[in-house]
Amino acid sequence: MSLETTATSLPEPLQVTAAAAQAGADAVRGQLRVALPMRHAGTHEVELRYELRGPEDAPVVFVAGGISAHRHVSASASFPEAGWANALVAAGRALDPARLRVLAFDYVGADGRLDVPIDTADQADAIALLLDALGIARLQAFVGYSYGAMVGLQFGARHPHRLRRLVAVSGAHSPHPYASAWRALQRRAVALGQLQCADAAGLALARQFAMLSYRTPEEFGERFAAPPEIVNGRVRCAAEDYLDACGAQYVARTPVTAFLRLSESIDLHRVDPAGVRVPVTVVAVEGDRLVPLADSVNLVEGLAGRGQLRVLRSPYGHDAFLKETDRIDLILAAVLHGKDGAAA
Amino acid sequence: MSLETTATSLPEPLQVTAAAAQAGADAVRGQLRVALPMRHAGTHEVELRYELRGPEDAPVVFVAGGISAHRHVSASASFPEAGWANALVAAGRALDPARLRVLAFDYVGADGRLDVPIDTADQADAIALLLDALGIARLQAFVGYSYGAMVGLQFGARHPHRLRRLVAVSGAHSPHPYASAWRALQRRAVALGQLQCADAAGLALARQFAMLSYRTPEEFGERFAAPPEIVNGRVRCAAEDYLDACGAQYVARTPVTAFLRLSESIDLHRVDPAGVRVPVTVVAVEGDRLVPLADSVNLVEGLAGRGQLRVLRSPYGHDAFLKETDRIDLILAAVLHGKDGAAA
Repeated sequence: MSLETTATSLPEPLQVTAAAAQAGADAVRGQLRVALPMRHAGTHEVELRYELRGPEDAPVVFVAGGISAHRHVSASASFPEAGWANALVAAGRALDPARLRVLAFDYVGADGRLDVPIDTADQADAIALLLDALGIARLQAFVGYSYGAMVGLQFGARHPHRLRRLVAVSGAHSPHPYASAWRALQRRAVALGQLQCADAAGLALARQFAMLSYRTPEEFGERFAAPPEIVNGRVRCAAEDYLDACGAQYVARTPVTAFLRLSESIDLHRVDPAGVRVPVTVVAVEGDRLVPLADSVNLVEGLAGRGQLRVLRSPYGHDAFLKETDRIDLILAAVLHGKDGAAA
Repeated sequence: MSLETTATSLPEPLQVTAAAAQAGADAVRGQLRVALPMRHAGTHEVELRYELRGPEDAPVVFVAGGISAHRHVSASASFPEAGWANALVAAGRALDPARLRVLAFDYVGADGRLDVPIDTADQADAIALLLDALGIARLQAFVGYSYGAMVGLQFGARHPHRLRRLVAVSGAHSPHPYASAWRALQRRAVALGQLQCADAAGLALARQFAMLSYRTPEEFGERFAAPPEIVNGRVRCAAEDYLDACGAQYVARTPVTAFLRLSESIDLHRVDPAGVRVPVTVVAVEGDRLVPLADSVNLVEGLAGRGQLRVLRSPYGHDAFLKETDRIDLILAAVLHGKDGAAA
């Protein structure tokens, strides 16, 4: 059974509503409007849409994913559709919604209505406002993957008193210049489409190029080894059906402006590791084409005694968080509960 | 002083002209029309444009580069503008035009007038026709880089009696599926531009994406570490000026159709290494994002006793041939002349 609570009147710059759970609901959703002072764009009124799952008295873990992730992390009785990290937030997992309360939100800008530069610091500040509204003084942990790891580092730098520990997977204190160039070209693909009102075509192409950065040659080598075909006089490679599907799926759920502004946000991201004043577990994937291992090492060095590094090798590269769920879960279990399963 | 010889009448399917060197010319250019039976496209009449540099009685080495390379490999007295491999074909180098005769051509399709699928086998057969026309029975060596390495492998498979040895740099017996996907998306960028008659914009974007495959994160990390700027409300990354220049340069010299058909040609390429019946030195670059080291190893294994592998590590990745000229020259010297400098 789903339950949403919405603020309808907005007399003040900061107007919030908390969700009230109905009896029997194992997850609640809500939204609130806040006036958010933004690093590069002045103050904007934005709507924060969240989902909170788990027992009311359990410690709260914030979970944040890539730029296309959202508040619905996992399927629950209340919201049974699959979430974006369904295999990681589940019974028996380190992120067990019977033991922990899992909070997530839609990124600022994800609705495509905010067409200004958005910084990871803005996302971190929005999360702090959300915690205020929900009466959550302190998170047990922040588990961030990709863009979520960047936001988590900003949260640890700007709101360290609201957080016990951070797990930053496949994201570092600044984007790698090669990855930034890759994203800049994706945004150009969108711009090329927009020139001719072919926004969807441009966005699909951008997503397809992004997929090459999320995955690895190893995976493509195994899946798409068939020789190309000549179709209507043109060469069509084995991976193109898959890439078509990736583009179409993404276009169906993503406003062009949301993609552009959140993609930019990754490139704007800069955090001084020395300023992150909470314990951080940095999880790096060897073979990640967006976040080189060296950047994760630099991050851990900058964290001094507060950082520890875990390295995975995965054919899924940057997407390992979503694919290597058993191995990620083991790491989360050790970090969140200690190796023996006791709450840390 | 430049010298071109051109066939003007074409009564026969195979009509050739050979260049006649003027006194004092150290290089000659010529062109000939041939009827070329193509693997996927029937027989087409194509113009082969070549350049030949060096003493008439010296052994001939054919040099072939990437899809944007051409017949002008190096600056000479006759053609003083810089060639695409100027630093490798020069006095004192393994490819010394005082000791060797260097032959190169414009790839079939490079003029943009042949809008059909072009196979590397077609290029190899065109080279054989060119040798016929020039009265060259056998090449001392074929030095191919990237697409040129693929064409060289086809030449070694289809015309082994015309070749003593092959040096195949940064190219293998088949393209890697990940690299093929990357190129397929570049061709989609062109198609997106063509939708609106913005051919140049699409081709520029394709080239910019290609540059990311030719170079490495290491190089970008060193050159473009500056944080992005916000320009007219949009994030602009440090590498974008460089990428703009790459796109503009390429568009100025490349017909859209040439790019599309030669890009496709890389993806069509398939050679059975067991069928390559000449000695082959395979040069691989660790860190090449288009040709994984494993593919070069597979190639050498397939060549059985006829293959030997040399591996370079370079921050220039796929472009190492054009950038690590001293190291490439050492390899070429050992292969072509023996380590002591004697002719092999």
